[in-house]
Amino acid sequence: MEYPNIPKGTRDFSSVDIINRNFLIKIIKNHFKLFGFYPIETPSFENISTFTGKYGDEGDNLIFKILHSGNFLEKNISHVLKKVQNDELKIENYTKYLSNKALRYDLTVPFIRYVIMHKNQIVFPFKRYQIQPVWRAEKPQKGRYREFYQCDADIISYYSSLWEEIELLKLCDDIFTELNFTVKIYINHINILKGLAEIIGLKQHLWKDFITSLDKWDKIGKDLVKKEMIRKGIPSKLFDKISFILDMKQNFNEKEQYITTLFKNSENVNKGIKDLKFIFKTIEKISLKNIILEWNISLARGMSYYTGTIWEIFPYGSKKHFSIGGGGRYDLANSFGIKNISGIGISLGLDRIHLSMMKKNLFKNSYYPSKVLFLNFGEEEVLYSYKFINILRKKGISTQLYPNKIKISKQFRFANKNNIPFVIIIGKNEIKNKNIKIKDLKKGIEKEYDNINDIVNQLN
Amino acid sequence: MEYPNIPKGTRDFSSVDIINRNFLIKIIKNHFKLFGFYPIETPSFENISTFTGKYGDEGDNLIFKILHSGNFLEKNISHVLKKVQNDELKIENYTKYLSNKALRYDLTVPFIRYVIMHKNQIVFPFKRYQIQPVWRAEKPQKGRYREFYQCDADIISYYSSLWEEIELLKLCDDIFTELNFTVKIYINHINILKGLAEIIGLKQHLWKDFITSLDKWDKIGKDLVKKEMIRKGIPSKLFDKISFILDMKQNFNEKEQYITTLFKNSENVNKGIKDLKFIFKTIEKISLKNIILEWNISLARGMSYYTGTIWEIFPYGSKKHFSIGGGGRYDLANSFGIKNISGIGISLGLDRIHLSMMKKNLFKNSYYPSKVLFLNFGEEEVLYSYKFINILRKKGISTQLYPNKIKISKQFRFANKNNIPFVIIIGKNEIKNKNIKIKDLKKGIEKEYDNINDIVNQLN
Repeated sequence: MEYPNIPKGTRDFSSVDIINRNFLIKIIKNHFKLFGFYPIETPSFENISTFTGKYGDEGDNLIFKILHSGNFLEKNISHVLKKVQNDELKIENYTKYLSNKALRYDLTVPFIRYVIMHKNQIVFPFKRYQIQPVWRAEKPQKGRYREFYQCDADIISYYSSLWEEIELLKLCDDIFTELNFTVKIYINHINILKGLAEIIGLKQHLWKDFITSLDKWDKIGKDLVKKEMIRKGIPSKLFDKISFILDMKQNFNEKEQYITTLFKNSENVNKGIKDLKFIFKTIEKISLKNIILEWNISLARGMSYYTGTIWEIFPYGSKKHFSIGGGGRYDLANSFGIKNISGIGISLGLDRIHLSMMKKNLFKNSYYPSKVLFLNFGEEEVLYSYKFINILRKKGISTQLYPNKIKISKQFRFANKNNIPFVIIIGKNEIKNKNIKIKDLKKGIEKEYDNINDIVNQLN
Repeated sequence: MEYPNIPKGTRDFSSVDIINRNFLIKIIKNHFKLFGFYPIETPSFENISTFTGKYGDEGDNLIFKILHSGNFLEKNISHVLKKVQNDELKIENYTKYLSNKALRYDLTVPFIRYVIMHKNQIVFPFKRYQIQPVWRAEKPQKGRYREFYQCDADIISYYSSLWEEIELLKLCDDIFTELNFTVKIYINHINILKGLAEIIGLKQHLWKDFITSLDKWDKIGKDLVKKEMIRKGIPSKLFDKISFILDMKQNFNEKEQYITTLFKNSENVNKGIKDLKFIFKTIEKISLKNIILEWNISLARGMSYYTGTIWEIFPYGSKKHFSIGGGGRYDLANSFGIKNISGIGISLGLDRIHLSMMKKNLFKNSYYPSKVLFLNFGEEEVLYSYKFINILRKKGISTQLYPNKIKISKQFRFANKNNIPFVIIIGKNEIKNKNIKIKDLKKGIEKEYDNINDIVNQLN
């Protein structure tokens, strides 16, 4: 018999974990609601075709697929074997015979699929939130799991408005303010990156590779990004043309003036700058409390579906590149064949926020176990006690009954080990005298009452 | 471009669904806590070896397996192809090369795996609750999905006590009482079925087949059960020997007297009867409100891990066999190589309770959308309004800002379609006069205030 274990990249959550995670979820959910987002949920697995081509090549490889089941699989695998033997099928192309379903990779693509399927019941602009797990076949490491929770708020509409950016930034600010947690948000704009790409003369077909590599700027450093770009066929001199811009460390106004002067003829750059200017100007006026917003020109957000502003959220002051959320403006409906619906959203990583808050010691929750244990002196006594147990529970007091009639010292030990603060003792004597004895384990004090309501008052 | 869809047996949940489901979860969770159960969560997928052999053959076939990913899969499939070509591998045995992970099939087996892995941190008896989705590759039909939520409460200990049965039945009673929903619970005892099997001389190796078929008694009827048993090699005359007992319609005392007399020498039957007698007697004394408990001798609960009492929960008065929960006493630790740990638990089917309550029209929740919409008259006006938006949200009032400056009539239409009851109007005039105009859309009344707090008071 093998000793049981769980797959790498997955976790068990103890009661303390759950209490802290629920605390976070409650706060995030509450602010989503206050901003007028409505909840939806989508299935844990979708047809593979829903996901295909949405996440880029690197993303596609990380999607978990579900094996066909039963006879259907057996038939299909025979089919594959025959085809491969007859040279009718290449080894790379068999997966479609083994699987047509895949685990949710993010919440954005399923949301757009939802919008398209339910568009006749939806009032646009539609604001939804969704808090569910997603799964990615990444190499597990500290803070990177194969199963993790995303908390997403998105707005989908036929028109776009920069007030949506403002609202989402304010929403983040309210959430992190309540969590007592300062974050840095890097913001950038796809049009600015497109402008840069045009200016250096990047060929159209290299665009996706360009942003996928650029996205790693802060993670692996500019030298490795350059190497990767060269390997993908992006000429090194193109890279050199813009690398000093990507590296700029000045504040928004300085960067803006410099770039506006340098690229005054680029429509794309001008559009991007105009949007960012509105955002920085407005943010200043509505004064955020716990967000430091910074324009990071190298921010690219790997996914190919972004079309406007993009941003990424980090704990303020953290040295490592440890993103706890992100978002941006995107067009995904297009990839489902629907025109003119534009989306924007933020995605908060529950597990990473949890980890960061643990590290900063920000959780105030302690583990509240049951408040009362009723000792078990035998059938007659328990039956007599049971009405009191019911009363305590009705009053909202978590109450346990020790299930077995074992040594009383062992029952006390159970209460102590479980941090249950009160023990109620009803033995033959108490029944005879119509008394209820309660022991406060912390103070070591025993008291007797003749009315259960006095005990309720003491416990509440 | 294909029109998007979701896999059969899965569902999207709208905001109204989510609100009703969360309402149920909150009530169930609250009672779990009041009875002293602590929350845990386990990963969505486990190593296949954790599940193997726990659910019987029929169950094993319904487990969703996850395909290996990337290069690892490619290498493995080449390996399989070569082996099959060389006749070294039978076609049925290739799955282990394609997958070693499977989606959670129930919450009981992962819980026991959790207990074994964390047994040094756990205080026994350990009471845990767990509310998570599970996945089964069943043929979808009304009320049967491939993804559904279970709400489980289990007790695991080194000793067993019939008070655990009583507590779990009372827990159900409290939950269904708060849901205003009467249920019928069929109860039976594995020892009684074992006794019957001994008495008719059933061979040991047919035991699993016997209970798997017996489990279908109420679903497919006794004639089809008999047919299935015969097909599995259980002699028809054995079946006839006990079929009249399985069909008994009397109340507990009548059945008990009859069976005790008939099988007075069967240790198994006597043990089962003794347990059930205690339960019926005690339940009567603590008087349940919304549970009708009935001994159903044909109840068998397919799974092979049960060892004592078993039960199944139905909406009272429903004609169809529509189980909304079940449970029983089991030994699963044994199958992980650990001795002497016994478990007992209930599992409530969230989706089926949801469906039943919809049918009985028991949901009182309506869909509470945002309370307020701020109209958008342009940048200056929105910027001026934004401080009021913040104040309302701080006071807990869900508030939306219309993101675009479009025709005011269209913005009103949005509020109406979304059931947002109040619209706040701050245009140039209101700014000049330092007024805030609010329109109650239901009453069609417009009022002006000069202090936002007066509006807060009206809305709260």
